[in-house]
Amino acid sequence: MTVNISIDAMGGDFGPNVTMEAVTRVLANHPDVSVLIFGDRSILMRSVGEDLDSNIRSRLEICHCESQVDCDEKPSNAVRSKQDSSMALALKSIKDDEAQACISAGNTGVLMALSLFTLGTLPGISRPAICAEIPTNNGNKLMLDLGANVDCSPQQLYQFAVLGTHTAKLALGIAKPSVRLLNVGSEAGKGNNLVQATAAMLEHDDSLNYQGFIEGDGIFQGRADVIVCEGFSGNVALKAGEGVARYIYQKLSKLSAGQEQQFADLKSSIQPSLFNGAYLLGINGVVVKSHGGADVQGFGNALERAINAARQQLPSALAPELEKTIKVN
Amino acid sequence: MTVNISIDAMGGDFGPNVTMEAVTRVLANHPDVSVLIFGDRSILMRSVGEDLDSNIRSRLEICHCESQVDCDEKPSNAVRSKQDSSMALALKSIKDDEAQACISAGNTGVLMALSLFTLGTLPGISRPAICAEIPTNNGNKLMLDLGANVDCSPQQLYQFAVLGTHTAKLALGIAKPSVRLLNVGSEAGKGNNLVQATAAMLEHDDSLNYQGFIEGDGIFQGRADVIVCEGFSGNVALKAGEGVARYIYQKLSKLSAGQEQQFADLKSSIQPSLFNGAYLLGINGVVVKSHGGADVQGFGNALERAINAARQQLPSALAPELEKTIKVN
Repeated sequence: MTVNISIDAMGGDFGPNVTMEAVTRVLANHPDVSVLIFGDRSILMRSVGEDLDSNIRSRLEICHCESQVDCDEKPSNAVRSKQDSSMALALKSIKDDEAQACISAGNTGVLMALSLFTLGTLPGISRPAICAEIPTNNGNKLMLDLGANVDCSPQQLYQFAVLGTHTAKLALGIAKPSVRLLNVGSEAGKGNNLVQATAAMLEHDDSLNYQGFIEGDGIFQGRADVIVCEGFSGNVALKAGEGVARYIYQKLSKLSAGQEQQFADLKSSIQPSLFNGAYLLGINGVVVKSHGGADVQGFGNALERAINAARQQLPSALAPELEKTIKVN
Repeated sequence: MTVNISIDAMGGDFGPNVTMEAVTRVLANHPDVSVLIFGDRSILMRSVGEDLDSNIRSRLEICHCESQVDCDEKPSNAVRSKQDSSMALALKSIKDDEAQACISAGNTGVLMALSLFTLGTLPGISRPAICAEIPTNNGNKLMLDLGANVDCSPQQLYQFAVLGTHTAKLALGIAKPSVRLLNVGSEAGKGNNLVQATAAMLEHDDSLNYQGFIEGDGIFQGRADVIVCEGFSGNVALKAGEGVARYIYQKLSKLSAGQEQQFADLKSSIQPSLFNGAYLLGINGVVVKSHGGADVQGFGNALERAINAARQQLPSALAPELEKTIKVN
């Protein structure tokens, strides 16, 4: 099947150079894909290398646009005044059946607002969600919402579960995708009112393969095919995971074979036991919580934290500072 | 300074064996630390190795307890009926000045409830927070709350900022700790009502070194000394980061020197560009959002996602499924 993709080339921190380089690389791997590139023609022409393969060049059409969406643009403002932008016109090409998918690295809020305005929503969906395919130990999985909806109702989360289920079937080829709800614990009573009310809705729908809660550390282990959450916690959880991956990737990239000591140092810097041992802050006494699943090194790390806090005499040293700072009623 | 630590030895998934092994290891490194171990004497005696060094043995006192907190115990129930448990008595030893810090790997909700009941809160603090010391690129940092408070008011988050600031000064020795609020974006207008209202309170307090928002990927880069958040998103963000670290740690542990190919495979499995490319799901058209900061490989990955979704004709294939599943009003 021949595929046409529309690309807003003006978004992204690094601008058209990065976009065009990525496009030409991907086109080389997909001989049946063509692209419509939306943006300022004179800038884009400079980004197209002169030595570009003529076959690739023939599948790459530049569509000139008079304006672009700024990174700090207000979504409502963009809908009113940026209908001639590269982002709006790239979306319009979907509406007009000139392309089958649109991609942008621009302002997320504006992309959502212009998509809603130009394309509308699917049946039964009140608010669209941002959904990522996440690489895990156990294949790619879906997670939504990742930031489009920072306040959600149970009905919205239920819609996300349905959207995610059918997308996992279609895009990942999973016959009966398991759905889990992101929560602070996996036991039934855990979490806030939102997850409790959503769980009740999901449990009663036999068309979904709902399997209960999932905690943050289960996301990248692939314990669910579809992870449902409101956009605030989904966004920070995904970015936290990305942040750790990036940190370790950068460290690994600096290593070369034969550097056993640096390798051992890297391993010791990311050992999970380093995360163990949390204070109950605000309690009038030093209380440290260790993970239930802590091993010897992990419990030892928590104990080191307790010893340190005891040496600092943390609560009695904190009390006068708090009295100065917080107005005690 | 001599330090006495009380330990609830009955909590934790692996029981007293792990706890006791961790304790004896840490005591060997800290000749001025003694511990009170709370739990079932007959079980604990079995966990103390017979060949234990007599100096360490002399700093380890076992305190027999009749009961223990179960992992699925309700906090309110534990406060009523588990005052003779190892957890409750370990906390009471703080109250009675027999120890300066308490540590438990048991049920977090019960530990918080019993701590509140036995020890109370510090001045000006309405709800305590769970606070972890997080290993980052840039030294250890503090993050709170991590799950004790799944619904928070701006006043509570403000209290967490004050608690975290003074704890960072005392426990980490940072003179003027920077404070940031966890959010889905770093620009001023981003986020939900809670973070907006909290930001306004923090900006107006000159005693705090408030520096604005932080996103999930900034946590482990150490971009703030104190990260403040409500317990739901804090919990899932921290666990997501831990999950990635654990995943990579396990992979690294299986590698030995000279395995260049496995090393390269590991690197390619965690490259940040793999995370790039999120669908706007629910929109009646394929729209893919790329990170603003995506490099060529990252934008290429997003483009691959767009091509795949276009091939699946995702929106038109989704629509009939949604019509069957969701009652359209």
